[in-house]
Amino acid sequence: MDTPEFSARFRREIPDGDNRERMVCQDCGFIHYDNPRIVVGAVASLDGQILLCRRAIEPRTGYWTVPGGFMENNETAEEGAIRETLEETGASIEVRDLLGIYSLPHIGQVHLVYRARMLAPHIEVGPECVEARLFDVDELPMGNLAFPTNTWALEHFLEARGKDLIAPRTSPVRF
Amino acid sequence: MDTPEFSARFRREIPDGDNRERMVCQDCGFIHYDNPRIVVGAVASLDGQILLCRRAIEPRTGYWTVPGGFMENNETAEEGAIRETLEETGASIEVRDLLGIYSLPHIGQVHLVYRARMLAPHIEVGPECVEARLFDVDELPMGNLAFPTNTWALEHFLEARGKDLIAPRTSPVRF
Repeated sequence: MDTPEFSARFRREIPDGDNRERMVCQDCGFIHYDNPRIVVGAVASLDGQILLCRRAIEPRTGYWTVPGGFMENNETAEEGAIRETLEETGASIEVRDLLGIYSLPHIGQVHLVYRARMLAPHIEVGPECVEARLFDVDELPMGNLAFPTNTWALEHFLEARGKDLIAPRTSPVRF
Repeated sequence: MDTPEFSARFRREIPDGDNRERMVCQDCGFIHYDNPRIVVGAVASLDGQILLCRRAIEPRTGYWTVPGGFMENNETAEEGAIRETLEETGASIEVRDLLGIYSLPHIGQVHLVYRARMLAPHIEVGPECVEARLFDVDELPMGNLAFPTNTWALEHFLEARGKDLIAPRTSPVRF
């Protein structure tokens, strides 16, 4: 199949009606907006145990993480969290509510982590992981987590246990 | 000042380790990820009245909206909502909690709308608006709002009155 190809000649300038510099193509006027990206993830539980996976890829290879990844177009945030959990751990989940909305301005990301239930005990390790399993609450690998947002989300999950109504927590630090 | 310029020759392909087509530069390997964008906004109130502004720009020129706009890099979501409100209405606000997180997969956006308080009665119409003012709850221009997310956020704000703890609402429809 023929794949169309196109070129762009970019220069940094402030577009009309804007107040910030953007990368603008000098041939076609295309403006490349570089905005924060959304990472969606889920703390999923089954019978009081929590689902985590261990990373097979950089960064933080070998460390444990809450299933998650970049949200894609054509999905809702909740659908993204369900998709990422399925891709990484094989687990089917149902989203319950929003546990945390963590802004990471130093890397241009916003992490949306949901509280979720595993719909069945099935786990199948995805290509970006070396391991995926359920942990009892008192054996969570808190010292071997990949990212600060994993620590926050697990702590917020534990605080939220037994509560039906929760407000999402935010980053405990401003980076 | 000399502005550096660079060119990119893009083709749609699946990068190594990915499972979706992305725009990849054939010269330098740069991958252009096109992910959902975040819009941040605030329903800000003062003495029971609600702050809205009327759009001076397309789309939906002349219609009323909750202050809001695209989140930028180097800010948190809450800071973005505060900045957009200040730019559009001149009002200084304090963010209280998250009122709604509305996924709009058909246009690749996620809207985060906060519940907020105006810190002072000062209003100054920004360049993207023709008007900005406080409305009593029973005179809100519900029939002349710019976007569905405005309607949802105002409805959710009214439902949340008197409640200290709220869970953010989501889109009532799947586009």
